[in-house]
Amino acid sequence: RISWISDIIVVVSPENIETMKTIIEKYGHKRVTVVEGGITRHRSIFNGLKVFAENEFSSHLLQKPEVVIIHDAVRPFVEEDIVSKVVIAAKEHGAAGAIRPLVSTVIASAADGCLDHSLERARYRASEMPQAFLFDIIYEAYQQCTDYDLDYGTECLHLALKYCKTNAKLVEGTADLWKVTYKRDLYAAESIIKDNLSQQVCVVTNVKETLAQVGFLLPESLKSQIKVEAISISLSKNDSCLQNIFSGQCYNFVCVNDKRWAIQETQELVDMLEKSNIPLLCPVVLILVHLDIPENNSFSIGMEDLTTMKKFARETKKKNILVYGLLIQCK
Amino acid sequence: RISWISDIIVVVSPENIETMKTIIEKYGHKRVTVVEGGITRHRSIFNGLKVFAENEFSSHLLQKPEVVIIHDAVRPFVEEDIVSKVVIAAKEHGAAGAIRPLVSTVIASAADGCLDHSLERARYRASEMPQAFLFDIIYEAYQQCTDYDLDYGTECLHLALKYCKTNAKLVEGTADLWKVTYKRDLYAAESIIKDNLSQQVCVVTNVKETLAQVGFLLPESLKSQIKVEAISISLSKNDSCLQNIFSGQCYNFVCVNDKRWAIQETQELVDMLEKSNIPLLCPVVLILVHLDIPENNSFSIGMEDLTTMKKFARETKKKNILVYGLLIQCK
Repeated sequence: RISWISDIIVVVSPENIETMKTIIEKYGHKRVTVVEGGITRHRSIFNGLKVFAENEFSSHLLQKPEVVIIHDAVRPFVEEDIVSKVVIAAKEHGAAGAIRPLVSTVIASAADGCLDHSLERARYRASEMPQAFLFDIIYEAYQQCTDYDLDYGTECLHLALKYCKTNAKLVEGTADLWKVTYKRDLYAAESIIKDNLSQQVCVVTNVKETLAQVGFLLPESLKSQIKVEAISISLSKNDSCLQNIFSGQCYNFVCVNDKRWAIQETQELVDMLEKSNIPLLCPVVLILVHLDIPENNSFSIGMEDLTTMKKFARETKKKNILVYGLLIQCK
Repeated sequence: RISWISDIIVVVSPENIETMKTIIEKYGHKRVTVVEGGITRHRSIFNGLKVFAENEFSSHLLQKPEVVIIHDAVRPFVEEDIVSKVVIAAKEHGAAGAIRPLVSTVIASAADGCLDHSLERARYRASEMPQAFLFDIIYEAYQQCTDYDLDYGTECLHLALKYCKTNAKLVEGTADLWKVTYKRDLYAAESIIKDNLSQQVCVVTNVKETLAQVGFLLPESLKSQIKVEAISISLSKNDSCLQNIFSGQCYNFVCVNDKRWAIQETQELVDMLEKSNIPLLCPVVLILVHLDIPENNSFSIGMEDLTTMKKFARETKKKNILVYGLLIQCK
């Protein structure tokens, strides 16, 4: 995602190394080196840093960077902006890390399980990720630190301070940097992803008059809630227009048609989506709207059409494209 | 919810007092007194406590309790168990509060925005709610504390320690006690509520043979995922059986039928649900499954049935009962 990062070291527990390699291959991630983690946080980070300095963990030594960023996978919503800010601050101060205000007051407990004292909330911050360091500083800190640090420590900024006398610059982060820790955090993460995916919808209609009208009214009524791209084309003739949409990472398509589910045209759209690699990470939703003027006051769609439709949807689902049919009866 | 709590004081900002009173009336909450809040946390809590000791805020003085619990509305998932634990601890120690492990390391920043020092995460805890106090202790603490405390303090346990020399007992709370603070927390709260509501489903079938079979197979296949109550009855004849279900706070019903949507029987179920007060707090979902054996290879349901159904669903929606129809075609 961020072009100015030259190498990405992913530190993984031994039992998950194969899974991680499969993921990297499947999604075509570049610039990634997988390294075996240690039994504690600090030992894992140290292993990651060694790739740039020692031959122990990698067959070829990677080019030593000026600045190294340390991040954890439990904060998936990190933005380029904060990464860039901590890197710039680290260049100037030697070390830098994202912080957030405390949500609850922090207290110290005595040995008997009673309150010893409480901290004044405004004077303290939660230390979050990402953090960035001049490589020489953090590597020096890890080389010098004790086994106790490696086994019980939780804070890289602390090591830089203790062993290299470097007071890290603290950078205010956004709320999105929170740590996905509990089941409720998974719920929240899922909802945030869904929210992002449904920011934009593309309405595809063909050129006939009634449809063009629906294709105009639908986007208009959607616009108040969501970003809408409306294109009125015959799918098969206008690839370049759709290609523009694809590059905008749109995950939602509504195709309005009056032909019986128009499987063939839809197939072309599915093919284009597949080629675009968009469905690789997140499911694409494709809603086929079929306008129907019934003749005998009951649904005019037959079982055969439904079966074809269901079969088609089952096939596209394997490609992470979810096809839904919507039948609208007009009086 | 908790029967041994004698009075509940809700402290609300002046502009929201009317809304709060409407909510209390609408949901039939008992034992509740609404009190006007102050401009800070501590001033609001103090106002709440005064109801038991001064005539300033309430026309009639409430009976002074031995123990008072302080909780905040941003932690909606508090369980009786933790409330009871802090109350028992407060009786013994004078004060008690729920705590949770720290998720991130806490650091102190210097005046220049750089790291001053970091705290050893294992030695500190996040102070959460609920907290409980002997009334005389916390009221005494609030009466003695300074304007600075009232304006900038965040911790009731601190006041009890500082002004009454009471070291609060710290009680380990559950993860559900987290503070709904950010948008992502609302997402999480919504998902937790939905999860709780969909723990149980009631399958209602009438007594005919084919339906009874479906009514048997459906619960069997659902059982692996969810708690299922299956009842095979003619709705109109077996109220007492359904009443048992209602008392179990079930929010999901699947009614399998072969009559055309069976509006009349469904109406009876809706009436019973309404009387039970179950739909008052959360929506009840009612899925009407209609088994259909088509004669001419197309849907045999007409527009008229659909219109009746939609009208019915629109009416029940006003009562917070969401009716869905599902047509299953059997070959």
